[in-house]
This record gives sequence, structure tokens and C-alpha cells, in this order.
Amino acid sequence: MEATEQKFLSFIQKMQSYNEAISLMFWDLRTGAPKKAVEGRSQVIGNLSSEVFEMSTSEEMESYITELIKPENFETLSEVTQKSLVECKKEFDRNKKIPAEEYKEYVILQSKAEAVWEEAKEKSDFSLFAPFLQKLVEFNQKFVEYWGYEGNKYNTLLDIYEPGITVDILDDVFHQLRERIVPLVHKISEAKAPKTDFLFETFSKEKQREFSMQILKQLGYDFEAGRLDETVHPFAISLNRQDVRITTKYDENDFRTSVFGTIHECGHAVYEQNISEKLEGTPLADGTSMGIHESQSLFFENFIGRHYGFWKKNYQLFKEYAPKAFTDVSLDDYYKAINESKPSLIRIEADELTYPLHIMIRYEIEKALINGEVAVENLPKIWNEKYEEYLGVTPKNDAEGVLQDVHWSGGSFGYFPSYALGYMYAAQFKHKMLEDLPNYDELMENGDYIKVKEWLTNNIHQFGKLKKPLEILQDVTGESLNAQFLIDYLEDKYSRIYGL
Amino acid sequence: MEATEQKFLSFIQKMQSYNEAISLMFWDLRTGAPKKAVEGRSQVIGNLSSEVFEMSTSEEMESYITELIKPENFETLSEVTQKSLVECKKEFDRNKKIPAEEYKEYVILQSKAEAVWEEAKEKSDFSLFAPFLQKLVEFNQKFVEYWGYEGNKYNTLLDIYEPGITVDILDDVFHQLRERIVPLVHKISEAKAPKTDFLFETFSKEKQREFSMQILKQLGYDFEAGRLDETVHPFAISLNRQDVRITTKYDENDFRTSVFGTIHECGHAVYEQNISEKLEGTPLADGTSMGIHESQSLFFENFIGRHYGFWKKNYQLFKEYAPKAFTDVSLDDYYKAINESKPSLIRIEADELTYPLHIMIRYEIEKALINGEVAVENLPKIWNEKYEEYLGVTPKNDAEGVLQDVHWSGGSFGYFPSYALGYMYAAQFKHKMLEDLPNYDELMENGDYIKVKEWLTNNIHQFGKLKKPLEILQDVTGESLNAQFLIDYLEDKYSRIYGL
Repeated sequence: MEATEQKFLSFIQKMQSYNEAISLMFWDLRTGAPKKAVEGRSQVIGNLSSEVFEMSTSEEMESYITELIKPENFETLSEVTQKSLVECKKEFDRNKKIPAEEYKEYVILQSKAEAVWEEAKEKSDFSLFAPFLQKLVEFNQKFVEYWGYEGNKYNTLLDIYEPGITVDILDDVFHQLRERIVPLVHKISEAKAPKTDFLFETFSKEKQREFSMQILKQLGYDFEAGRLDETVHPFAISLNRQDVRITTKYDENDFRTSVFGTIHECGHAVYEQNISEKLEGTPLADGTSMGIHESQSLFFENFIGRHYGFWKKNYQLFKEYAPKAFTDVSLDDYYKAINESKPSLIRIEADELTYPLHIMIRYEIEKALINGEVAVENLPKIWNEKYEEYLGVTPKNDAEGVLQDVHWSGGSFGYFPSYALGYMYAAQFKHKMLEDLPNYDELMENGDYIKVKEWLTNNIHQFGKLKKPLEILQDVTGESLNAQFLIDYLEDKYSRIYGL
Repeated sequence: MEATEQKFLSFIQKMQSYNEAISLMFWDLRTGAPKKAVEGRSQVIGNLSSEVFEMSTSEEMESYITELIKPENFETLSEVTQKSLVECKKEFDRNKKIPAEEYKEYVILQSKAEAVWEEAKEKSDFSLFAPFLQKLVEFNQKFVEYWGYEGNKYNTLLDIYEPGITVDILDDVFHQLRERIVPLVHKISEAKAPKTDFLFETFSKEKQREFSMQILKQLGYDFEAGRLDETVHPFAISLNRQDVRITTKYDENDFRTSVFGTIHECGHAVYEQNISEKLEGTPLADGTSMGIHESQSLFFENFIGRHYGFWKKNYQLFKEYAPKAFTDVSLDDYYKAINESKPSLIRIEADELTYPLHIMIRYEIEKALINGEVAVENLPKIWNEKYEEYLGVTPKNDAEGVLQDVHWSGGSFGYFPSYALGYMYAAQFKHKMLEDLPNYDELMENGDYIKVKEWLTNNIHQFGKLKKPLEILQDVTGESLNAQFLIDYLEDKYSRIYGL
């Protein structure tokens, strides 16, 4: 068996090699590749991706799975091989169940749909995108049939991004969240809004970058295993744990985009940089789920980056880079400004408090779509009604409404809930962390962020995909998903900021 | 046959895809990859390179070659397919003739030898490197036996880098060059040296970069299909014709490194950017040989970048970026300074006139080595004697002598002559160009470099590997290699500069 195990490990290591090359090309395209290179490079990425897909469903892969999964062989494998094998088998089964022709059609549809979505968004005309969205929904409905489902059809799609999470769980936690967030949002809308005009003073790109670099270093981002670049849509990307890059966008009239964006991506990156070395070259060397990943980025962004103590420590440093307007702004006023909460239309611009509501709206629509309970053509109306109901705001047009996110054009249904789950996970981790690090506020004030990072590494990062998301949650906090921690955090924080 | 032709073209396009990914990883490693990424990335490059090598010698490749090379099939193919097939066959035959085990040993030896060479150079101790060099020579001697040879054994190695060039040709042209350059060097050593102290004034990296960018634009380098970055050992690299990147090194105490280095790499890059679109995705979308490539870089560096007219046009611009010391330096003094000729020990720092002598020394040593006419252990002595004989200088140690170049540690024998050939080709092209563009000096003064670039594109660039080097030379100049043009150029230029 040892020989087969070794061959299997080499095979998956080769797949990782290709993925690494693909990731570098992706990063390069979004950070500095010359304009004329884009089209050809996309084809190269396509070629290599096909190769990886073919390997994952190849006869060679099948033979490893068949052989190594036999109980008498399986028990002789290392834990890393065992779990890698299970990952590969899961993907193999999933991909093999879709007829090749159908999958090809779907891939072509995806790439067309994204272009059409862009045009539709630009023209703010949902009717252009509707027929494509209709087909994407139908494909996903068919896939769910191929893959099978338990309870709700949407569960099968949720499982791709967040194994273990179901509609029942989400309905429950989202209900709890909504019951408490909506009244809070109402109260805040009647309270006195903080002064924020200084946030929009011109702040040069170079200065923003220099300050962000300082902060990244403080937070424990390893620049010997990463770098910071500029892009249009910011992201963190892991080529492997020794090379995890961050990108950001600089808005000279709103430094928050880059400063909080960089701290957010830093959370993703620090996760990947601290995955255990022993998982290298396997599919386990990756964040365990979208939700856990988001829990790390949101932990960094909100529980560190928007913490009062963090700014008590760093506001003076910030002023060294920031425009003069900040000279006369007190720490308290600054803190209130960067924590302003206000219902808005665009998810990616939403504040900590209202953000989960944006996610719930998408979740409810997706669930209904996949279960055939709403018609695609009615989405703009449904969308707008929900925004009015949850947030008290109504989009003026489709571009700032139902067309705002790219996800559906890529056929990604089941992904959005991860954003809210990540937030709840983060609050749950934070609650537990306070038991181990009761002087958390002090750590923030002293700039001792490494202790927080180490706690996260010990409890979460190192395991990569060795543990499933709910397994991590259980192991770390001793219970399953619990929305109460996020609710408590939000009520406490915003009551204090707005003096409710 | 059409189906087979299409499959063959897809297959080689896939190989090009992999090469493109490899090139990007190579570029990234040398321009900004994080430190800790280096080791893992080298492995990924290794994995993908093996894949390309395996494809080039695979049964699939063999079946395309066998089928398509049949005369009745061959004649139905497009010219591009025909010549791509011939390229693939040449490589297939070459690689297949070496027993797999032996090749593997050789690859391992290469990677070890490079590390040992580095150490030996650092310690300036040839005896460390000698046993590895001995084995590398022996491998190459064996390979020559496998591949076969006509006339001199060294011809087979020359053919890899410069098809059509033989020892007979080289002996002849090098003899002519030497006969005329050596006396010229002697005369210059007795003439009055130009003032050069201002060249070494502190010149900031940023200013050097800004000036270089201006020059690259003037020379027709397409920034929409390329970019300029910093590195330790400068190079130009083509990912494909739409993405050809330049790298350079900034020495704040000698701007010539970056300014002339950038112009040199620009010549390589403009070649690749202007290869015909119809060759895309085939092995023909590449410079036809090392020598022709070098002819383009040297044309740019010497015939444009060191031309009096070029500086008549650009000296004012240069002064806007350069340190104050240049304010009082006249154009004539500046021109003489950047064209100073002085025998030196290090090839890559040599001037236009003495450079070919450095190449001849290496050529003679390589030829003797491959033919078993000198012992490896005697190389330091031979090297030093030749430097004394050709250039009148003697290395103080091995580091500035026989160990200075990396090439042999990689097993590259037969490559060095390309540098001198490129120079002769360039002078020969220039002579012909003057017939078509008799106002060449005026073009230089007016900054009309695009006309020169267009001439080079029409006559050389566009063909990629569709034409062999000597075929291009013949088609463009109506004759085969002729050293006289370079000799005339050097005698004329240096006699004027030194008032001989």
C-alpha cells in the first residue's frame, strides 16, 4: 500500500502545482499584467484548469480512490492521506455525477452570463440578465437532483461552501439575528449620527499604503511569505502557505476602503500562512470553508481593526500619515465615525451591524429560487420589497438592487450565507478567546496582536481542512453554531456608541 | 489529415500554455516573489517543466510526427504547421537519443554544479568546481556522440543555439575580428582617455527608472504588452508576444547599468513583441536563435543607444533626470565618456570594442574542451594566459577569471559564440539598413526610432522561427556572415572618438 499511497500523494501534489501556477496567473492578471496579455492568459488559465479538472476525475484518480478507500488499506494510511483521499473522493463523486456534455454547456453559460451581467448592471436592466439567470438556476436545480439532497434542495448547495450547514440551521440563526438587529437599526436611525466629514478628506495613495504596511506588520502578516499590491476588486490569494498575497484598492477620498480592506484581507492571509506545514502539497492546505475563512477576516477587520483599543494604540501613528483634517479630531470622535451604522443599499459598503441583513435577503431569495418558489422575472420586485422591509431603503434601479453582486452570474448559489456565518463564528470564537485572554482589551491597547493571532492559529489556522467547520467550532467553543454571541456583541457595541 | 493537424496544433498549444505559466513563475521569482516562496515555486517550475519535456518526447508527439511527416501528408499542411512539426521533430530526435537514465543524472548534476559554482566563485577557488565541470564536459562529449557530428564535435553544440554556424565559420570570422580589434585596442590604450568621473555621480533609482521609461517609449517598446521591473540579473522574458517583460538593475553610482541595460533588453523585447500573430501558440513564436536575438539587443544598445545622434536628441531630457554634475558636461564629452574603451577582466562589464575578445577566449576554450584537447584542471592557467594575450590584463584570482560566468555550470557549451555572432549580424543588418534608410543619422537626431524598429520588424522580427538565422541574414543582406561590417563600424567609430 505504501507505494500506492506515495503515488497518490505525488499525483495530488502535481495537481497542487498546477493550481499554484493558476493562482499566480490569476494574481498577475489582477495586479499588473499588461493589457494585451489578458485574453491569451485567460486561455492559458483555462487550459491548466481543464487539466486539473481532468486529473480530479481521471481513471488514475479513480484507481487510487478505489484501492485506498478499502478499509484494510485505509487504516494503514496517515491521517493526512486519509483526509486528502476523502476530499478527492468527494470531488470525484460530485464531478462524475454530472454528464460531461452538460457540464461543458454549463461552463460556457457561466462565462457568457458574467459578460451579460456586466452589461446589464451597466445599463441597470435586469431583463437582459434574467434569461441567463433562469438557465443558471435550472442547471443548479438539475445538479442538485444528480447529487441528491436531504430535506431542502438548497442544502446540497450550502454543503459545497459550508459542509454541515443546513437550511434549518440558517433559518433558525437568521431569525434570531433579525429579531434583534432590526430593532437596533431602528433605534440607531433615531439617534444622533456621529460626525464623519473628515473621513472623506483627500488621503494620498502612498500614505495609505505606508500606513497599511505598518498595520499589516503589527498584525503578524508575514511579508517574507507574502506581499501587498493594488487591484480593482481586493482579495487575498494563497499560492501556498509560503506565498499568500494581499491586494487592496486605494480611494483617495475614503481611506477606509484600503485600511479596513487590508486588515480584512490580512485575516484571510494570516489563516493561510499559518496552516500546518504537514498539509503542504495536499488539498488540505487550504481554509476549511468559506465561512471559517470569513470568520478570520471579519475577526481581524471588526474585532481588531474597529476596536477602540486598537485605535487608542494606533491613532497617533495614523495621524502621521493622514491628512491634516484629523489633527483636531479626538480619538472618540474618530472611533465613532469609523463605526457609524446606517442602512444602505450596497452590501459591500454596509457596516458591521446592517451587513447580516444584506445576506439574509440574498439567502431567502436563493433558497426560494432553487426550490422553484419564485420566478426569476419577479426578482427585482422581491429584492426591493425585502430591502424596504429589512433595512427601510429602496433601490432606485436594478444596478443598485438585484444586479449589484457578481455571484449569481457565476452560478454561485449557496455562497452568500458564508459571509454571515463567518461573522457568527467570529463572535463565537471571540467569546471563547476572552476566557483564555481575559485581558483582550489591554492587548488591543498595547498592540499585542500576536497573542490573538497565536490563539487563532492554535485553535483554527493550523488545521487547514483537517477539520470540518462545525468540528472546529465545537472543538474550540464546546458548542455548535450560536447566534447569541454576535447579537450580544452588536447590541453592546452599538448601544455604547450611540448611547442607547 | 486536417483532424490530425488540428490535434497536433492543440497539443503544441498546450505545451506553449505550460511554458507561459513557467515563464511567469520565473519572472515572478526574480522580481518580487516573497523570500519563503522560492523553494516551493522552484519545485512547481520543475513539475511543469518535466511535463513539457514528457510531452515533447511522448508517444502522442511521436504519432503526430510519424503521421504528418509523410510526404503526402506534409505537403497538405500549412507552412506554420510544417515548420512547427520540423521543430518538434528536431527536439524529439535530440531528446530521444539520450538514454532517459543518463539525462536524469545530467539534470541532477546541472543543479548541483550551479550551487557548487556559486560557492567556488565566492571562495574564488576553481578546484571546488573542477570535478563538476569535468563531468559536465564528459556528458556533453557523450551527447555529441549520441547526436552525431560533422567535422568538429563542437559543431553539434553550436547547432543547438545557432543552427548553421560551424567551427570553420567561427574560426574564420574570429580570426578576422582579432586581427583588427587587437591593434585598435592597443592604439586606444596609448591615446588620451576621456574624462568619465561624472558618470559615477549619485543618480537616484527613481530618476533612472523615469528616464528609462521615457526611452523605452521612444524606442517603440509597447507597454500595453509589457512592463519594466527591477531584478538582480537583468533579462527580457516573453510569456507570449502580447506580454514581453523587461527587467533591469539600478546602480545609483553608475546609471549606465540601467540605462544601457534597459535599451539592450528593449531590443530583445521588441523582437518578441513583433513576431507575427500567425505564429502564436506554436514553437515558432520565438526568436529564431540566440545570435539573432542578441543582434537585436546589441543593435538597440550600440547602434541606437550609443549613437551620437541619439544623445543629441536625448541629452537634454537626460539632464532633467540626471544629477547636477552633468550640467556642465558638454554633449561631446558625455558621448565620449559613455563610449570609453578599456581592456577589462569581466565580460559583462566590457565595452563595445573589447567585448568580442572576451567571447573568443571562451570559444577557444570550449572548443578545446569538447574535443578533449585541454584538461579541465589547466583552465585557470589557460584563461589567464589568453586574457593577457588578447586584452593585456591578467585576473588576480579565479573569481574574476575562469569562474566569472554561470554558463558552464549549467552545461551550456556552444552558447557564448552567439554573443559575438549577434554583434556581427547587427553590424551587417545596419549596413543594409543604411541602403534603405540613408538618413539613419538624421533619424537618430530626430528621435524617429520607430522607422528603425519597423525596418527590423519587416526584415527580422515578424518571422520568429519561420526562418533560420543564416536564412534571415541571406534574405536581408544578400550574403552570408561577414565580419567586415563590424570591423568597419568599430574602426570608424573608435578612430573618431579617440582621434586616431
